[in-house]
Amino acid sequence: MSESQGKSASLRVGVVLFPGFQALDVFGPVDCINVLSWSHNVTLALISSTLEPVSTKPPALAIATGQSVVPTHTFTTAPCLDLLLVPGGLGTRGSSPAIEEAISYIRDIYPELKYLVTVCTGAGLAARAGVLEGKRATTNKMAWAATTGLAVNVEWVPHARWVVDGNVWSSSGVSAGIDVTLAWIEEVYGSEVARKISNSTEYTRHEDPSHDPFAELHGL
Amino acid sequence: MSESQGKSASLRVGVVLFPGFQALDVFGPVDCINVLSWSHNVTLALISSTLEPVSTKPPALAIATGQSVVPTHTFTTAPCLDLLLVPGGLGTRGSSPAIEEAISYIRDIYPELKYLVTVCTGAGLAARAGVLEGKRATTNKMAWAATTGLAVNVEWVPHARWVVDGNVWSSSGVSAGIDVTLAWIEEVYGSEVARKISNSTEYTRHEDPSHDPFAELHGL
Repeated sequence: MSESQGKSASLRVGVVLFPGFQALDVFGPVDCINVLSWSHNVTLALISSTLEPVSTKPPALAIATGQSVVPTHTFTTAPCLDLLLVPGGLGTRGSSPAIEEAISYIRDIYPELKYLVTVCTGAGLAARAGVLEGKRATTNKMAWAATTGLAVNVEWVPHARWVVDGNVWSSSGVSAGIDVTLAWIEEVYGSEVARKISNSTEYTRHEDPSHDPFAELHGL
Repeated sequence: MSESQGKSASLRVGVVLFPGFQALDVFGPVDCINVLSWSHNVTLALISSTLEPVSTKPPALAIATGQSVVPTHTFTTAPCLDLLLVPGGLGTRGSSPAIEEAISYIRDIYPELKYLVTVCTGAGLAARAGVLEGKRATTNKMAWAATTGLAVNVEWVPHARWVVDGNVWSSSGVSAGIDVTLAWIEEVYGSEVARKISNSTEYTRHEDPSHDPFAELHGL
């Protein structure tokens, strides 16, 4: 899609929500999409098991604070999408019904997507859905062993802010979601659109996907 | 509060929500507080006019995408707070009932607070509430003229990622909210706690409050 096409064609973005998603994994990328929507035709669906508000509070962490976000669709009523964003968070661990439903949804919708973007341990959900098979991908560096252990047929890249393989854009932990989203916006809408968004949000981008001080920090 | 005290004493954080708040203004800082709560005793209230979900969609921008967040309290039922965080966003403009109620709430609660943190054009709401009178403060650099024009008795600092004056911590636009929050966490809980949060969210902090490439970019 060229920059001029981008101004007219509608881009359909969806975000998977589940209990214990990490707030910044979602709202870093989503804030970029929101600002993009001020000048470009974009729709954004928040998709979960039910329409009940979904909390960022990790189910297994009683003392944690959490905020509740209202889904716009369920996994069964979700619209057609161009891009699906899969966040991570402590809630990705384990096999609750909500997580199993999210994994099934990712598996089912992936063949229809133009782009899949994973943030942090969201790559673990994509891996469990089988959609990273044979692909290069990265994930959160602090949760590296637990996440990469979920799928052996993935070429996990330990030193990367984000990795692109085909239509899968996977990023490192939490705030790296902002960088992969801006890189994706640059690819689809052009560098000027991405630059305007990072300048208006006063965000100093990591523009080099191999820039990753956190890999060494976490012993990778 | 020393670091050892921080582990036992409960810290009460509140965040003002209004239609058209900027998502990252809230969830950048709030994600830091969420991670802090995994190891420290923290409560977090989302406070608005009513308990109805509040959308990030700017009321005057029909084409924009938006996400709805569920408040935990209204301005009349809000709990006692140690810290109030005031986000910005396109929704701060104008004089809707929701904005006027937010401004009244900021004015009323300020004398009880230990800390006030503003992000982006949230400084404009604090200025309109009169609580920045005689203080040094900063705000979003792209919306500089409109925001600083709201209060003449404020010493607006054009070249700053964030400014601390007394108990008021004001930050520049959007993503600067993460830096001011981590700086505040460092002040209250110690540098090791702040470093653990930025490392676990893989966020490269701006640790120098005078570091501000966006001031020059926006002609200040």
